[in-house]
This record gives sequence, C-alpha cells and structure tokens, in this order.
Amino acid sequence: MVVVMKERVSDSEVEAVIAHLVEMGMDVHRSTGASRIVLGVVGGGTVDPRLIELMAGVHEVLRITQPYKLASRTFKPDDTIITIGDVRIGGDEVIVIAGPCSAESEAQVHATAAAVKRAGAKILRGGAFKPRSSPYSFQGLGEEGLQLLRGGANAHDLKLVTEVMDASQIEVIGKYTDIYQVGARNMQNFTLLRELGHTRKPILLKRGIAATMEEWLLSAEYILSGGNTDVILCERGIRTFETFTRNTLDLSAIPIVKELSHLPIFVDPSHGMGRRDKVAPMARAAVAAGADGLIIEVHNDPDHALSDGAQSMFPSQFDRLMAELRIIAPAIGRSICLEPVARRGWAR
Amino acid sequence: MVVVMKERVSDSEVEAVIAHLVEMGMDVHRSTGASRIVLGVVGGGTVDPRLIELMAGVHEVLRITQPYKLASRTFKPDDTIITIGDVRIGGDEVIVIAGPCSAESEAQVHATAAAVKRAGAKILRGGAFKPRSSPYSFQGLGEEGLQLLRGGANAHDLKLVTEVMDASQIEVIGKYTDIYQVGARNMQNFTLLRELGHTRKPILLKRGIAATMEEWLLSAEYILSGGNTDVILCERGIRTFETFTRNTLDLSAIPIVKELSHLPIFVDPSHGMGRRDKVAPMARAAVAAGADGLIIEVHNDPDHALSDGAQSMFPSQFDRLMAELRIIAPAIGRSICLEPVARRGWAR
Amino acid sequence: MVVVMKERVSDSEVEAVIAHLVEMGMDVHRSTGASRIVLGVVGGGTVDPRLIELMAGVHEVLRITQPYKLASRTFKPDDTIITIGDVRIGGDEVIVIAGPCSAESEAQVHATAAAVKRAGAKILRGGAFKPRSSPYSFQGLGEEGLQLLRGGANAHDLKLVTEVMDASQIEVIGKYTDIYQVGARNMQNFTLLRELGHTRKPILLKRGIAATMEEWLLSAEYILSGGNTDVILCERGIRTFETFTRNTLDLSAIPIVKELSHLPIFVDPSHGMGRRDKVAPMARAAVAAGADGLIIEVHNDPDHALSDGAQSMFPSQFDRLMAELRIIAPAIGRSICLEPVARRGWAR
Amino acid sequence: MVVVMKERVSDSEVEAVIAHLVEMGMDVHRSTGASRIVLGVVGGGTVDPRLIELMAGVHEVLRITQPYKLASRTFKPDDTIITIGDVRIGGDEVIVIAGPCSAESEAQVHATAAAVKRAGAKILRGGAFKPRSSPYSFQGLGEEGLQLLRGGANAHDLKLVTEVMDASQIEVIGKYTDIYQVGARNMQNFTLLRELGHTRKPILLKRGIAATMEEWLLSAEYILSGGNTDVILCERGIRTFETFTRNTLDLSAIPIVKELSHLPIFVDPSHGMGRRDKVAPMARAAVAAGADGLIIEVHNDPDHALSDGAQSMFPSQFDRLMAELRIIAPAIGRSICLEPVARRGWAR
Repeated sequence: MVVVMKERVSDSEVEAVIAHLVEMGMDVHRSTGASRIVLGVVGGGTVDPRLIELMAGVHEVLRITQPYKLASRTFKPDDTIITIGDVRIGGDEVIVIAGPCSAESEAQVHATAAAVKRAGAKILRGGAFKPRSSPYSFQGLGEEGLQLLRGGANAHDLKLVTEVMDASQIEVIGKYTDIYQVGARNMQNFTLLRELGHTRKPILLKRGIAATMEEWLLSAEYILSGGNTDVILCERGIRTFETFTRNTLDLSAIPIVKELSHLPIFVDPSHGMGRRDKVAPMARAAVAAGADGLIIEVHNDPDHALSDGAQSMFPSQFDRLMAELRIIAPAIGRSICLEPVARRGWAR
Repeated sequence: MVVVMKERVSDSEVEAVIAHLVEMGMDVHRSTGASRIVLGVVGGGTVDPRLIELMAGVHEVLRITQPYKLASRTFKPDDTIITIGDVRIGGDEVIVIAGPCSAESEAQVHATAAAVKRAGAKILRGGAFKPRSSPYSFQGLGEEGLQLLRGGANAHDLKLVTEVMDASQIEVIGKYTDIYQVGARNMQNFTLLRELGHTRKPILLKRGIAATMEEWLLSAEYILSGGNTDVILCERGIRTFETFTRNTLDLSAIPIVKELSHLPIFVDPSHGMGRRDKVAPMARAAVAAGADGLIIEVHNDPDHALSDGAQSMFPSQFDRLMAELRIIAPAIGRSICLEPVARRGWAR
Repeated sequence: MVVVMKERVSDSEVEAVIAHLVEMGMDVHRSTGASRIVLGVVGGGTVDPRLIELMAGVHEVLRITQPYKLASRTFKPDDTIITIGDVRIGGDEVIVIAGPCSAESEAQVHATAAAVKRAGAKILRGGAFKPRSSPYSFQGLGEEGLQLLRGGANAHDLKLVTEVMDASQIEVIGKYTDIYQVGARNMQNFTLLRELGHTRKPILLKRGIAATMEEWLLSAEYILSGGNTDVILCERGIRTFETFTRNTLDLSAIPIVKELSHLPIFVDPSHGMGRRDKVAPMARAAVAAGADGLIIEVHNDPDHALSDGAQSMFPSQFDRLMAELRIIAPAIGRSICLEPVARRGWAR
Repeated sequence: MVVVMKERVSDSEVEAVIAHLVEMGMDVHRSTGASRIVLGVVGGGTVDPRLIELMAGVHEVLRITQPYKLASRTFKPDDTIITIGDVRIGGDEVIVIAGPCSAESEAQVHATAAAVKRAGAKILRGGAFKPRSSPYSFQGLGEEGLQLLRGGANAHDLKLVTEVMDASQIEVIGKYTDIYQVGARNMQNFTLLRELGHTRKPILLKRGIAATMEEWLLSAEYILSGGNTDVILCERGIRTFETFTRNTLDLSAIPIVKELSHLPIFVDPSHGMGRRDKVAPMARAAVAAGADGLIIEVHNDPDHALSDGAQSMFPSQFDRLMAELRIIAPAIGRSICLEPVARRGWAR
C-alpha cells in the first residue's frame, strides 16, 4: 500500500497516519519529494485503505498487491492444465464444449450429443437445474435431466459439464457430471464456491455480468483456497449500455486473464450474443484471441427448444464453425482435434 | 408482442411468421401500413421473441407486456404498506434502519443500538453471516452474532434486519430477525428467493449492481409468487465506468420504481458511496427524491470496526443527518418521527 | 508516480527501470520491502506510465498526482464564486436556471421567461443552435433565436445561458449571452474549449455521458488554462446499462466534485431523466445533495414544443417544485430567493 | 410507432391519444386484444414518442422504424465498396492501415511507413492535429505534420488517413490526405460531420466511447445526407466498468453493424487495448469476426514516441501479426494481400 499525502500537509498529520499504520502492524517507509510526501506501507497487518483515506492530510491510498494469491501468475507461473480422462484443458488443443441449453428428452440429448461429437466437440453441455430470471419460465428436469445428459455423454464418448445453482445440489449433480458449472449469477455465491472448493472435480466458473476481472479471480480464489485446483474461467459477456446485444462479450479478457493468472480461459459466445446468427463470428474471434476453449449451445431442433432456442445453433451451423476454427487455430500455434468420423466429412 | 416486418417482405414470409405464431397458441392481428406490415400478437401461448426475430422477413419484435405481474402497479394500484409491530413501512413516515456492518461484540451492538435509537432509527441492521469478495476477510460471527443483534434490538425497542446468504440459513436466522435481507450479490439466487417466498417475514431485497429495474422486479416476483407479499426494494448502487465511487447510487430508481410497482423502496447510501463522508448528502437526496426509507451503517467506533468501518458513520454524524432529514421530509409531505428522548435534544 | 516491481524481479530489471526514469528527467527513490521493491518517482520530466508498465519486472505503475491543476482544490482551496450582475453563483443561494429547450417564437420565449422569473429562476436558458443526433430533426433558429432569448431575458430581468456548438459560433453568441453552455457531446471538443478559455464570460460545462469526473475536470482545465476562471460544472446523466431512463443522473458527482474542485456544480435533471414527470424528484435530490444550482427545461406549452417537449415542465409544475426546494435548501444551510411577486403567490 | 395502452384504460383516454396522433398527421390502426388495446401508428407526420407516453392511459410507446435511412441495409442491401486508387475497402481483401500516433519527424515517418508497407499495410495513418485530454500534452505538428505524412505515404506507395478535429481544419487537411478520420470524441460534433458530408473524400468515423450502434449510424447519416457516400465505420472500444483496459473493445459490433448497415467496418485494437502487448490478439480476433480492416499504431521506435508509445507496436511485432492474419483471413473467405517484397520475406 502506498499512502500519498496532500501537498500542504502538516507534520502532525503525517505522524498520525504513520502511528495508525504502525499500530495496525505495518512497516512504513517515508519518502519526501519536492511537492509531496509518500508513505510506502508493507508488513503482515491488515488495513482498510478507505480508513486511511479518511485521515486528515491524506490525498489518496494506492493498493500495490493483488488481493488474490493462488489464482495469480506470481504464485504459479506455468499454465494450469486440467486433465479429465483423455481431455486436456489448457494445453495446445482448443477444447470445444457443446450441447443444448437444457436436457429435454432422451431423443433430444442423444441427437445433439451425436451431432456435436461428430463435429469435434469433446465435452457435452446441458442443464438440469436452470436459473431463470422469471419464476414463470421452464426450470429444468432436475435429476432426470442429469440422467439423460450422462447417458448422452456416455453413448458418444463425451465428458459432461452441467450447472450447479446451490450448495444443496452439489451431491446429486456430482453423481453424474465431470465438471461443475457455476453460472454468472452465482459468481459471488460464496457459500457455493466454498463448498465446491472441497470437491475434487473441475469447476467452470463463469464471469458475472458486472464482475471485474479481479473479482472473478477472487471468486476462483474461494475455490482454490478450499483445495480444488482445477478452475476453468469462462467469459460470457458483461453488461454495458449497448442494447443490440444482451451483453457485450469482452474478448479482451482473454489476453488479460492470461497475463494475470495461470488458469485456463473459455468463452461462451452463445450467452454473450443471444442470437445464433451472431455466435460463429464471436467463436472464431475468441479462438483467434487465444481462448483455451469454447462453450456453445447446439440443439438438434432449436426452433422447438424449451429454453434459449434462439441462441442455439443448428448442427449444420456448428459443423461449419468447427471447420473455420480448424483454419484459425494454427495461426496461434493451437489445434482443434478432428474425430475420425468427422475427418472424413471435412476432408479438404 | 408486436412483430415488425421488414420493408421489403414477401407474402410467404409474412404467412410463415403468422403460421408459426398460431401454432404456438397465439392470436395475430395483421396491420398493413404504407411502408411496413406490423403483426399484433396476443393470446395465452408462450413465444421466445428472439426466435421470431430470426425468421425471414422479420425486422424486429417488440414486447408489450411486463414479464412480472404481482410486483406491478397494474396488478395492485395502491402502495403496499408493511407493518411490523408499530413500524409501518411504505406509509407517510420515512423509516430509517441503522446499525453496524457486522455484529462484533455485545458492547458494540448495544452502544450502536442505543445511539441509533436515540437519533430516531426504528430498525437495527447488522450482519452475522457476511458475504465477502475475498476468502481471506472476516466472515461474521454466525449464530452468536444473531443473538447479539436480537439482544441489542430488544434492549432498545428496535426491529431487526439481517442478511441471509443461503437457503440453508433461513431457519436459524428466522429465529432472531424481523426482516430478512437479500444482498445485491444474491438478487438472482433463485433458490434462495423461492424459499423466502415461503416464509412469512418481510424481505429487504437489494438491487444487484448490474440489475435492470425489470430484473429487480422479477426477483421480487419470485418472492411474491411464493405467497410472501412483504417485499421492500433497496437501491444500493449500480456499476458504471466511474471509479471515484465504489458504485453509482442510482436515485432515479426511486421515482421509476414508484411508477412501475406498489412495493416500498429504500436506499442504502453507505454501500452506494463506500466512504462515510459521502453518505449524508446522498441520504438527504434519497429522502428528497421520495424514498420510503434508508438503511445506513453506523458504528460506535468505526475506526476499529472489523468490516466496512470506512463507510460507517459516527453516531454524532448520524444525529446531524437525522436532523437534516427532518427538515427535508415535509417538503414532500413525509415525516421522520422523533423519539421522546431525541425530541428534547433536537428541539428547534 | 509509484512503480511497483514484480515479486520475483532481478537487479538488472530494477536498474533498467531506474535508468530509464532518470533519462526522462525524473528522480527515483527506491524502497525495498519484504516481498516487493517499490520506486517513488518525482521530478519535472514527463513519463508515460504505460511505457514503464511494459518494462520487464514491472508489476504496476500508480499515478499519484492529479493531471489537472487549476481546477483542483489543492491549487485553490476556497470555493469559486462567479458574479454576473446581481447573481452570485457558488454562494449560499441555490441558483435556478430555467427555460425552453429551443427558442421557437417571441411569444413562446416571453411567456416562458415570465413564468420562470415569477417562480424564482434567476437565469433563462434556451437554445438557438441545437445539437441533434439525427440530421432530420429541428436544428434551431440560429441568430434569430439568440435575439428572441436576449429579448426575453431583458424583459424579465433574467441573465441568459445558451449553447455554443462550435468555435465559429463564439463571436455571434457572445453578442447576446451572459453564459456560454458547452453541451455533453462537446465536453472534449478541445478546439472549442481552448477558444472559450480566451473569452471572458462564464462557461457552463456539461459532463459528457461517458466522462469520468477526472476527464470532466481536465476539460475545465482547458478553459481555465486559457485565462477564463469562471467555469460552472453541470452533471446531466451518464450512460449505464439501465434503459428506463435516457441516462443515469449521477448525483454522487456533487459531493465528490466538491471535494476535488473549487468550481460550482449544477445539475440538469431534465436531460438526466428525459421525462417531465421524473424531473421534480431529482431536482429536489440534487439540492439536498448540495448542488449549487439547477438547470431545468420549462415551456409555456410543452405539448407543442419543437424539441424536448416531453422533458419540459409546465409552468405550474415548476412553481410547485420551487416551493419544495425552498423547504429543502435550509436543511443544508442554503437558500433559494423568492421574487417579490412570487412571495405573494407562495405565502404559507 | 406502436402505442400500447394500459390494461385498465377508458374509452376517452384511447380517443384522446388517437385524436392527438391524427392531429400530428399520423394514421392510426386500433387493435383490441384480450387484455390490451394496441395502436399501430404510421404516416408522414412526426411525433415525439415520449410525449405520447406521458398521456393518460398509455403504457408504453414502441418505435418501429430506424431513425437512419441512407446508412441502413434496408435502403441499400449491397455492401458499400470504397475505392481509392488501387485500394478497395469493403471487398474480399482485409485492408490494414498502420502508422504512428503522431507525425514527429521526417525520419520517423519514413522509417515507419517503410516498415508497415513491407509488412502489407495499404494505408498510412498518422496525426498532425491531436485531440489530447490534457491541455498540457503534445498537440501535434500541424500542417508541417501533414507534409511529413504525405511525403512518407508517397515515398512508399501508401494511401493516407489523418484526423480532422474541427470544421476549420477540413481545407488544409484536404490538401494532403486521402481519408479524413473523425475521432471518437468528435463522433457527435455535428457541425464537423455536416461539413464533411460536403467533401468528396472517404471518412473513417470512429465510434464514440459511449455511443450505441444506432447513434453511430446516425452520425454516419449526417455525412451521407450531405452527399458523401464513402463512410468507413471504426470500432475502437466502449467505456465499461472494467478498469484493466482503457476501454472494452466491442467486437460484437462487427456482425451487428454488418446486419444493420452496408458500410464497411474497421477495428482499432491499439486504442481499444492501450498497451502494445494486447494489440495482436484483438487484431486477430477482429479479422476472425469479419472486420473489413484494421487500423494499428506502429512506430519505428515506440519507446521514444511523443504520444501513445505504449500502444504502438514495434515493426517486428507488426510483421508477425500480419503473418498470423494471413492464416486467419481465409477461414472466412477473405485475403490479406502480400506485397512483392514482403512475399519474399514471408515465403512459407
């Protein structure tokens, strides 16, 4: 912490600030410049910077340490790689997660799983417990949905990610899923984050729509500090003044998070854009910007989906997107694996 | 819903849209203007407007109904008044809630409760379970904190409000509190909202920092639709690009919510501003704009508070603020009651 | 400037940063803490902090000086008071500016001027050159409008403020107005600001809808550094994600600007809210928060106004608002003067 | 325009609204649904929707027409292609503009122009008149800068774009430049836009940092309606709550503008990110998302640049970026031409 004193400050004001900091367990280095006195503050105590700012003679207090530790590159310089069976997240391969918004029926889950597997996805997504902003909307199938999703994933050799909305759901969802997803609205549900820190499955942590990158990494810290080191960050759009899109997908988060943290970062262009015809351009952009993976809504029959049909791609659109991504990934030294069956389809 | 077709649209495109809407259970009225065809859509079915927007020939889809019902003035034109013993929330009197961020000790709770009661507060605030963005910060005293708060409230004839962070805490908190507070980060914790709808105590529902007023009212709807009609809305700042304040307190929410809804609206200038020297101006402004009440952090010794000391007022600052509010309230036909003891102090 | 080095930094990295800073004309104080090295940087040179951030081993660069000087309280601790004839802006009296969006006709200007004068306004507002976001909207009457406004102001003993959109208009507008208004969209039209710095009439400088308070004060600095010391700041709403209002009126700017700067601050609730039924609550709130004045759109016949009729008050609404403000102002030691004629009307 | 009446509305309220609309020159179609009456409003008159919203019985007014015409795809379905000599903007080739923030010296301009030409840029950028938020920063070389830039462009067979800050500069800049750039802060300088509409050179119109896409297209409309059909839109970041970046580069603007308008869209990742090490990922992302071109700051010696050195790339970084872009462009059916001299260098 650096305390910048006002230009016209009295000795007794400076002394009072130093005395308070020392009382709180800090060491203080005083630097006198031409126009200002600056105090460098270090040590093991804890001080609320705003309290110092309220003291007489203080111009400003500047924080110099990141409030998160385990999530930072300072703590762990090398990229975190998360392994689930034969799927490696955070390595050279860009991993694509795809599937429907919600599990609706066995036929829907299987048809969609088959389609996304064929196109090259490695992980199936799908919701059984749905957070809906209106109490009058479809709320998901619950455990029956989990069974359908697990069945679909197994049948097509896919891993599974599904959303957990509440600490009370961790156990039942854990029986079925490979990865727990924490939705944007729950990014600061600290009870949930703390409990997930005690599980041993990877967590896909979406960024809240008004969360700064620092808050997002602090939420990851809740999970990491519980002992679970496998956190995947996922950008899905932040709220801005623009109204054409539901949210503004912040792709600048990709290079910035890569600098601040060792954790892998994914992008969800489906929720970020809200309309299927705008998903492909942003998916391509995310890979070009260096994302470690994508999570995309695909539905075998989006026009009759029970939720989010408008932002779900048709399987044929997803096929074309995957082909485009395979051209882009090598530009930055990445790959997107091709399944044997798909290889035949996309021979070029 | 109103579907606006593109200017150059074919008959078959219009027919396809109408057919789809009818299939989904809607009635459609077709209006042909000089340059455009507009479809008025009513009826009992449900349609995702974004799906219609993706159809050929559609320019735009406009929603014409509010997605919330029970929270709207259309449903209930008269103001909701919530009564807790002799405290009436939403009536002519502006109700002030005050107290510390967290319960820390019996001495602290009692000293603060005595001070805020003397100045004219009707309800004590204080946290026992604290949502903290860092896992390394003070997390509250838990049930012991609830006991301290209830004791302090009883000793000084105050009602009590305290925050519930998770559905699993509802029962224990219910043994002590008069009002459950839902924090900004939990405004869309739908599991929690649904459970609170089944309780019979008032809920103080803070606005999320990135929540539109419509989303806020939809969250209230979750509680109301469970049968609990006593919801108090509370503005506490939204996130904007400005960095001098932690959040931008959106006082325009007061007149707008008053138009859209019958529910009472409070303002929390302490969290909205983040520094105690900026709380009074915004508290005065909130009352002048028509707020039904305020919730303010006051601490008997803010410089040594365990959390949020920087935004907690000294009792003497709170006294002065209450005196200012008593001048302002009559400008809009409201009052702020004076306790007998305070009356003597503030005779003018 | 404070340069915070990374935790694991080499000596040569630290030396390179120091060498670069010294080369740019700065003095550097090196502080070695338990986990980090921090460099205090002072002196007469200029350095782009972002360039230092790009150097190896640098964690972060923190600015410690405000980039504006003449506009700051450090430079001038006492409030600036601007005198135009018998009107004192920035003193104990809250000054109200009122009038139509645009000058439309002699009858309209005179009727409106008479009405606002009677209610207690001291300054007439009105536009002759209008910035309109669409090229197809009414663009103002030009110099004829200026003549009408000056005539209306003179006939009713009011001062006049009108908007200047471009440096080329300064001369003609200067023949008629007492105060130049710079609109939100021109807050960073630096050519215009620099030219206005060479005039000797007060400038009402609106905050841009995406301007931080620091940028706003820097724009004031452009005018002040040209030698014109009479700048009035005016908050009129910032752009946020909320869509019910055109903008979010940021009343927190009032106490914050009062701390950072000695310049008077006004509030424009008409543009901030966009609908006349929402203007009065925010006008009251602005005065309660400590604004030095208000600028309000009033029209003798708003339903037939050529621009912004929806946000223009009826004279009777403005009368009632002024009466409310006269109750509120004393709560913070301010007054709103009553004209002799109005005094009779509002005897209570 | 569609007027949605409240659920409980009287006949006389409906009649009053219809009468007012007809008086303003509109035709009204009345639709009575189960719970609401909806009025479809068409015709040649002009009505302020907010005025209608203030009438008794009105729930909401929905606009159904875009306020811009010439800029819309409805008006001109085919992409606009702008030709400057042998450079075609808006066609299959992605056009890259590159160069320094400001012209500083003949050596600097020539070295930078040579470097960007070699890497494949087609147009040189550089400022002679600089808009700076502080009056104390370097303000550009003026006409001497224009001469240096024109000389550098000619010597290396590049076209030239430079910023115009004020209508008074149009003539002198016109003697040197091929394209006028309008900066983000001037996006709503309507005097400037109107004058540029009367020139016959292409305009690169940057998006304001708080401008919606609709406002941006309305600003383009100002230019188009003056008779100048060659407008290039340029996204350069919008202001959000995130503080790690100067602005949040909104790449979603690319697919959305492509749908709304026929005008070409460029992206400026240098201003959008503010630090050179974050420029390449966003430049790649912009091309992957479908941008028609890029404008990138490159400097032969960024560490000693007089302005914006921190966001200027080294020539070698720019070379590498261009190579990456040549891999990405074909993924969406675009190309980035290779100069003969560069072809040799980048043979792969």
